[in-house]
Amino acid sequence: MSASTVLTVLDLDSAGLVRSTRDVDPGAAVLSAADLAATRGDGVFETISIAHGRAQAVEAHLTRLGRSAAMLDLPDVDVDGWRAVVRSVAGSLDGHAEAWVKIVLSRGVEAAGEPTGFAWGAVSPDHTVARRDGVRAVTLDRGLPSDVATRAPWLLAGAKTLSYAVNMAARREAARRGADDVVFVSSDGVLLEGPTANLVLRLDGELVTPALDLGILPGTSQADLFRWAESEGIPTAYRRLERSALDDADAAWLVSSVRHAAPLHTIDDRRLDVDRDVTAAANAYLLGRSE
Amino acid sequence: MSASTVLTVLDLDSAGLVRSTRDVDPGAAVLSAADLAATRGDGVFETISIAHGRAQAVEAHLTRLGRSAAMLDLPDVDVDGWRAVVRSVAGSLDGHAEAWVKIVLSRGVEAAGEPTGFAWGAVSPDHTVARRDGVRAVTLDRGLPSDVATRAPWLLAGAKTLSYAVNMAARREAARRGADDVVFVSSDGVLLEGPTANLVLRLDGELVTPALDLGILPGTSQADLFRWAESEGIPTAYRRLERSALDDADAAWLVSSVRHAAPLHTIDDRRLDVDRDVTAAANAYLLGRSE
Repeated sequence: MSASTVLTVLDLDSAGLVRSTRDVDPGAAVLSAADLAATRGDGVFETISIAHGRAQAVEAHLTRLGRSAAMLDLPDVDVDGWRAVVRSVAGSLDGHAEAWVKIVLSRGVEAAGEPTGFAWGAVSPDHTVARRDGVRAVTLDRGLPSDVATRAPWLLAGAKTLSYAVNMAARREAARRGADDVVFVSSDGVLLEGPTANLVLRLDGELVTPALDLGILPGTSQADLFRWAESEGIPTAYRRLERSALDDADAAWLVSSVRHAAPLHTIDDRRLDVDRDVTAAANAYLLGRSE
Repeated sequence: MSASTVLTVLDLDSAGLVRSTRDVDPGAAVLSAADLAATRGDGVFETISIAHGRAQAVEAHLTRLGRSAAMLDLPDVDVDGWRAVVRSVAGSLDGHAEAWVKIVLSRGVEAAGEPTGFAWGAVSPDHTVARRDGVRAVTLDRGLPSDVATRAPWLLAGAKTLSYAVNMAARREAARRGADDVVFVSSDGVLLEGPTANLVLRLDGELVTPALDLGILPGTSQADLFRWAESEGIPTAYRRLERSALDDADAAWLVSSVRHAAPLHTIDDRRLDVDRDVTAAANAYLLGRSE
């Protein structure tokens, strides 16, 4: 029988190298109350989808984990060590069509000088309805200017940190407004990303996602979606998009690692057509990826 | 013999009421890897100073914890329950002149529907030099506009959340610039606060701290410092301060719960006189507070 929840704890040295790993009862307490993950949100993470036991886009996720870690002056990511953990967790979940593993690299227990790491795997919720019928999103001000990444790198815009309280609060604000999700807009009116997803718009037949110099995360699933699109003859582009692009788009998606491509049927008060054929084909591709 | 590190774990119900508490070996793992404190920085905290076993400004800290919790849609803070924990931890550290306790309220294990809470007490580092000779601070852009609190409450400006990765990154940026600490400035040039302290300037003989509607934390130690100043006949004020106020100030302090009042001897490239008498008197008052 395949597990439905899996937890692996990594023993890391001060340079971030994986000394050993151990599988642990997911119900067990494994973190110190002084771990900076828990007291400062001071670490980085990735969430990687798993299809029938195969982790997806692993190299892209590990590269991004390393990029985030560098932005936080964390030790280098031991890519080989983490890859082995991801594969192991994925293999444990091979009885499920869709699962995910979250990998977390924390700065560790305060003053201990060694990072902590763990990988948490679980079965995915059923995203059938969101993928087929779409979701309703609202735009919310992210407060930061579109040049934040170059102007103020200490604000960590574009790093996937454990400090996600704002991302979660934005989702609650969306719920208060009767919506499911959020599209963040910079303080100067530039489209950014969702709290846990990248934004893709279809503009004049082209799939366009916000440029990567805006202090946003480079999307792993979005990158694979673009690969699929190119293979289908659909042009793609990274571009700075003003908020008005939402009015010009004839379709839009929030793309992330577990829900994959969720079409937007409504953005603020504007209805959008859901292109079921393109969405279904894109999700079939994303679900079918292997490592 | 008095302990030097203390950990108390709270058992909270879904409404945030303290059902029970237990003292735990501080070296033990107490948190689940799925606790939202560790995976999302999704919770709130306070750090309370302890002098010879007496916790200081406890009501102000618990009030602020409740304010932060409300901003995050967390359950209400059980003030009586938390107060008892704070007093207990403080009492365990009564053999030390200066100690502190950090109290953490997390949204809890994902999907469990119950918050988690703990209190971590420890002996304070020696802040003698910083209090006497002062620290060097640099101004850093906080990226957010000064009206963020009203304009975009989902950005949680002014809530003391566990999502402190940016606060920690700003400190590292300061160190890179040869400084000890940071004064954050809004994107429109208004003075805010430090990453873990409030800013107080002396302007024409008056102690002035930034107005509280700027998306900053209401200072607990700063409020007590102002009480002391008023009792000494020194006028105090909360005011919106442009960055240029740093050039007009003849003294400045970063005020926080463990280091208390640390004078700034340098802000960016400007030297400031350290008023040793006023600083020493203020710190004597802050160190002498009881609950």
